[in-house]
Amino acid sequence: MSGRLAILGMGPGDPELLTVKAARLLAAAPVVAFFAKRGQQGHARRIAEGLLPPGCEELRFEYPFTTERAPDDPVYESALAACYDRAAAALAARLVAGRDVALLCEGDPLFFGSAMYLFDRLAPHYPTVVIPGVTGMSACWTAAAAPIAHGDDVLTVLPGTLDEAALAGRLAACDAAVIMKVGRNLPKIRAALGRAGLLARAIYVERGAMPGERVAPLAEVWEAAPYFSLVLVPGRQRRR
Amino acid sequence: MSGRLAILGMGPGDPELLTVKAARLLAAAPVVAFFAKRGQQGHARRIAEGLLPPGCEELRFEYPFTTERAPDDPVYESALAACYDRAAAALAARLVAGRDVALLCEGDPLFFGSAMYLFDRLAPHYPTVVIPGVTGMSACWTAAAAPIAHGDDVLTVLPGTLDEAALAGRLAACDAAVIMKVGRNLPKIRAALGRAGLLARAIYVERGAMPGERVAPLAEVWEAAPYFSLVLVPGRQRRR
Repeated sequence: MSGRLAILGMGPGDPELLTVKAARLLAAAPVVAFFAKRGQQGHARRIAEGLLPPGCEELRFEYPFTTERAPDDPVYESALAACYDRAAAALAARLVAGRDVALLCEGDPLFFGSAMYLFDRLAPHYPTVVIPGVTGMSACWTAAAAPIAHGDDVLTVLPGTLDEAALAGRLAACDAAVIMKVGRNLPKIRAALGRAGLLARAIYVERGAMPGERVAPLAEVWEAAPYFSLVLVPGRQRRR
Repeated sequence: MSGRLAILGMGPGDPELLTVKAARLLAAAPVVAFFAKRGQQGHARRIAEGLLPPGCEELRFEYPFTTERAPDDPVYESALAACYDRAAAALAARLVAGRDVALLCEGDPLFFGSAMYLFDRLAPHYPTVVIPGVTGMSACWTAAAAPIAHGDDVLTVLPGTLDEAALAGRLAACDAAVIMKVGRNLPKIRAALGRAGLLARAIYVERGAMPGERVAPLAEVWEAAPYFSLVLVPGRQRRR
């Protein structure tokens, strides 16, 4: 009998934003696995602090790069694939031995999460359950007290890595938008919002639902943006 | 001292998908309010079954229509606005009297939720906290075991109420899509997905994270879709 893999959505940052189900499965997990950047504790692991069962085995997987690279860089892609292969092999060894494993994933596992690559590798071979979580973007529009989409709004979630013209074109075509992967793309995002006539409506949110949470009109933010930041363009605010 | 309004994201359906924070606030709420369709218990209230504190006051607000109408129908709009005005007045009366109120909202309150209209009316006047929740769409892609978006995918959330040409155009421009408000729009949505060349990738999910959950390739679904249904087009599935 192999063990079961539980991929747990850990929510955006506040440990109380875990679901009751994820908290229950975490508290019973003999093996707890997570990804982290080099030299850091890892965001999912930080959320789990104080919730891990005593004596559980911790498996920490380190990303091979400290900053994100272009997704079409073949060196980056193959190094990441090897990282996911190693992590999957480590989890498989525990599962084969009959041990249940909880894989922690910030936000919602199947929404832009690294856990998806382990899901692809392991779910075909081992009993697997995924527990959805509150996304980082939900935490950000809640922090901003900004209802993001109403009625028949079209909402688009965009990576800030797109080029300025592509960003501007997509922004002009939607009612509401969330721009992720802000970081060093902030000047380009600001320019694209300006071209789309949306700069005055754009809200910058840093570290939503985490210590140091910060909300500001994007037009007033000029310094560098950290990894945990988003830009929101709330929808049509139809009066009802 | 006025009471505090807590707008609680109740998640997609499974009571265990409530956040720890929403469950804690619900368990201490002297007044619990929620919306429901005529003749029905209400989805948010159903999720809360078994979690309400003994002796709490329940405030049930009924929508003035049993099916959704075109958002530009002025009769529909004014009847809804009057419904939200009445609900806001009922909550304000409790808040002024110093009683805390929990307003239950399925999914995530500030993401296409009716609670947004009470937030707009009450948050400027009373201490208000919003607790984000797991969205229905997260429950649906989790039910489908379908990672929805990867890396630099553009994800668009579309209302099925758009006309066929608009739907097809927007679908052709994104990497991943979620189509909400399916119901009687299903034949049109199918046609739009066909025009965009995406029908073979489309997944139909009914009642995600609820009793009676069902997942099927959209191409195989021909019967009428209920209110709690979504269509998913997962993103690029980039191999890593």
